[in-house]
Amino acid sequence: MKLPGSTEWVLHCATTLAQLDPGTSASTTQLAQYYDLPAPYLAKQLKTLVRAGLLSATTGPRGGFRLARPATEITLLHIVEAVDGTSSPYECREIRQQGRGALPADECRRDCILAAKMAEAHQAWQHSLAGVSLADIVADLPPTAPARTRLRLTGTA
Amino acid sequence: MKLPGSTEWVLHCATTLAQLDPGTSASTTQLAQYYDLPAPYLAKQLKTLVRAGLLSATTGPRGGFRLARPATEITLLHIVEAVDGTSSPYECREIRQQGRGALPADECRRDCILAAKMAEAHQAWQHSLAGVSLADIVADLPPTAPARTRLRLTGTA
Repeated sequence: MKLPGSTEWVLHCATTLAQLDPGTSASTTQLAQYYDLPAPYLAKQLKTLVRAGLLSATTGPRGGFRLARPATEITLLHIVEAVDGTSSPYECREIRQQGRGALPADECRRDCILAAKMAEAHQAWQHSLAGVSLADIVADLPPTAPARTRLRLTGTA
Repeated sequence: MKLPGSTEWVLHCATTLAQLDPGTSASTTQLAQYYDLPAPYLAKQLKTLVRAGLLSATTGPRGGFRLARPATEITLLHIVEAVDGTSSPYECREIRQQGRGALPADECRRDCILAAKMAEAHQAWQHSLAGVSLADIVADLPPTAPARTRLRLTGTA
């Protein structure tokens, strides 16, 4: 059970964008240099966040990416599910309905109790991540972090 | 983020073994026929549960697998982690320490807040599965299920 390696990239890039002044953007090149990541593949991930409605892409000489809504309204779950989807890691193929032990259909109207418990665990994971916004993450950084982030990323504090 | 397909197999097989009379075992062949699963690959998974201390393997004409401890003391987390390991699906490669934005080492003594929040979510998932034992699962089945399971599996109700 592994999330894509790019999950770390997008979580950090979104956290970085959450530290920019309102209205400013950061380009793929700036973000790639900031974290020493391969720009073409990072661009692909950032576009995924745009499609998910979490980032906005702007064009032009000062174009790039910015948050599409306030940092208080973007959770870690939004970001992780944008790159990895919303499905549970557990796949129920209904083996209870096959083989010598196959249950009759009328006993399978309710979800399998094992699938239900695995789904509950996934919901607990989702609930945990849904409770943390980018604003919460930024609030946990040292007070001097946002100014330094802006300076290093865009050259403007 | 996907658990192996065999996760469903081992959860169901362990639930089946939890319905046997104390001291009785089921063979790989019996379990494979019960769920119409490929016996050689199922055998490999069952041996993984033996190595994890969840099942005991016995030899001889009535040999096979049985629970290694009471069903109240085997949780879904034990079973899932036996086949998939205990590590979090999120991998932190410390990209905060690389590139133009690299943080100095003295600011990285504490885990990255993003990694910490991802770890909390994984703990919530673990906690949820650790709260469900095989005995809980069996208790949720219809009262007639264990006798039928034994009959179909071993031919002895």
